[in-house]
Amino acid sequence: MTSPTVKQLGEIGLLQYLRRFCPAEALADDGAVLSVAPGYQLVVTTDVLVEDVHFSDRTTRPEDVGWRATAANLSDLAAMGAEPLGITLGLGLPETTSLDWIGPFYQGIGACLSRYGGVILGGDLCRAPVVTVSITALGQVRPQHILRRSAALAGDAIVVTGNHGGARAGLELLLLQSQGATLSAIDQQCLIKAHQRPQPRFDVLPVLWQVCGLLSRPIAAMDSSDGLANAVLQICRESQVGAQIVRSQLPMPPALIQWRSETEALNWCLYGGEDFELVLALPPELAADFVAEVGEPAAIVGTFTDEPAVTLGDSQNGRAAETLSLEQGFQHF
Amino acid sequence: MTSPTVKQLGEIGLLQYLRRFCPAEALADDGAVLSVAPGYQLVVTTDVLVEDVHFSDRTTRPEDVGWRATAANLSDLAAMGAEPLGITLGLGLPETTSLDWIGPFYQGIGACLSRYGGVILGGDLCRAPVVTVSITALGQVRPQHILRRSAALAGDAIVVTGNHGGARAGLELLLLQSQGATLSAIDQQCLIKAHQRPQPRFDVLPVLWQVCGLLSRPIAAMDSSDGLANAVLQICRESQVGAQIVRSQLPMPPALIQWRSETEALNWCLYGGEDFELVLALPPELAADFVAEVGEPAAIVGTFTDEPAVTLGDSQNGRAAETLSLEQGFQHF
Repeated sequence: MTSPTVKQLGEIGLLQYLRRFCPAEALADDGAVLSVAPGYQLVVTTDVLVEDVHFSDRTTRPEDVGWRATAANLSDLAAMGAEPLGITLGLGLPETTSLDWIGPFYQGIGACLSRYGGVILGGDLCRAPVVTVSITALGQVRPQHILRRSAALAGDAIVVTGNHGGARAGLELLLLQSQGATLSAIDQQCLIKAHQRPQPRFDVLPVLWQVCGLLSRPIAAMDSSDGLANAVLQICRESQVGAQIVRSQLPMPPALIQWRSETEALNWCLYGGEDFELVLALPPELAADFVAEVGEPAAIVGTFTDEPAVTLGDSQNGRAAETLSLEQGFQHF
Repeated sequence: MTSPTVKQLGEIGLLQYLRRFCPAEALADDGAVLSVAPGYQLVVTTDVLVEDVHFSDRTTRPEDVGWRATAANLSDLAAMGAEPLGITLGLGLPETTSLDWIGPFYQGIGACLSRYGGVILGGDLCRAPVVTVSITALGQVRPQHILRRSAALAGDAIVVTGNHGGARAGLELLLLQSQGATLSAIDQQCLIKAHQRPQPRFDVLPVLWQVCGLLSRPIAAMDSSDGLANAVLQICRESQVGAQIVRSQLPMPPALIQWRSETEALNWCLYGGEDFELVLALPPELAADFVAEVGEPAAIVGTFTDEPAVTLGDSQNGRAAETLSLEQGFQHF
């Protein structure tokens, strides 16, 4: 027996089916009402994922599409220092989409929200030529905890909260499983999971407040969803500083280093994207405390400078430093 | 000289171009930070519009796509009793989209926000097979002013804030201009404007609070974006009441009555959708005061009842009442 399509169900039938995934209020009014805690500010962020641009059935199960779309938005909240309140979901679906896809997709969203907090506040459904997922996440933050891209100072350490390159490597394995023949099954799963189930780094925020409790200036941060290099470059642009990234300090999954050439691993680490770690600017002594507290693979990967350029060099050998630019990263157009 | 496409500009060039339409903060961080006024609650609502489903270049100029997409979301805020704070914009674009389309589209959004309040808080851009506009609107409301679909009581009057059927008639004129030969140019423009430039009814909210200031119960409301019949049916479902709509009381644009058969005009009035008026449930005496205060074409169009059915009848002649159902309206699938 095959599962019905949205065309067979009709909009009313589909809405009825979706009630199981949402709080009753989510479908009962023109908008959702919620409270921001006293003394907190609201944070809002939006991401759109399009089938065959951001994901495809070939590499991503519907539950993983739901998880990743949600995690990508929650990661933006984490990068602002905020805790999740909930999401709205605008969903465009071809008429041929079946409940076999929609059910697991909503389950993936629900699993991610259960893990990190928040509920589906509301949404909109419509017909579209390909599956289009537009999520807006709402969070709340104490004003003194707001993280800004513009707050980096020359002399700050560049801190990353974890490995980079794993999500891109996982995608590669999914595209062509046979490529990973030299990797153990566990290593393969580890990389694939980095792609399918990224983890927004809300866990490091309490550590950050604790370590930086006495710091009287704002902290700069951005998530590495568009790549580690992109995050450093964006922070530099908004803060009007430069940066020196030290090649040998970049944390990568051991399986990636073992699997690919040094050049390719570095490329995926810097430009692969979707690792959803945080990139932070912290005074060096606090950076060391923070990294020690979070634990490896968190690392200090360089220094923000008062030069205009963002360079990638290596303190360990004599190779010339390379200048990075935003144009090198992934562009949607 | 033709205007560049997004593919020619690249994502970085496009973002640079879009800075003129957004406050500087909108593009500077992973999320936007805003404050909800003390004593207010947050309201959030989402709508997705897809090219060739909700609009097409044949009938809708880019500035009108921007206005309508914004107005549709703001109307949901009005239907909750809320005032606008801002919107986020998730925009999917084919690579061939040119700045000739994107510029006016953002101008349409800006014009609507200037009129009713709010700013572009942030957004996301990506590639998509057709233009896909996902807007999430944020507003704030005093808890005692929240309008709910579930608050209607049997005995309440069904109030509408204005004409229905005009937006559908305007679309028809745009689809085939020659059809309107029997209408004056002014009448044609009036119907076309109802389609292109719908007006969220924030203006009636102060009247509502003034007239209902002493009412100690919540007020039910919904906007008529999916049709007047749909709004009455949804309020009935959430409030567990029925309704009797009086055919002769339904306010329609005079040009529509003159132009189409009685049956077709009634059909567009009930099911056409996108008129973005408010449908309210008010105690009869307050309903009369409210309608008098707002002025025609606002009208009382029937009564909520303790019967389960929603019927359409006519007090003026002996025609049998017809039972309405949600299935009769527009369904996206």
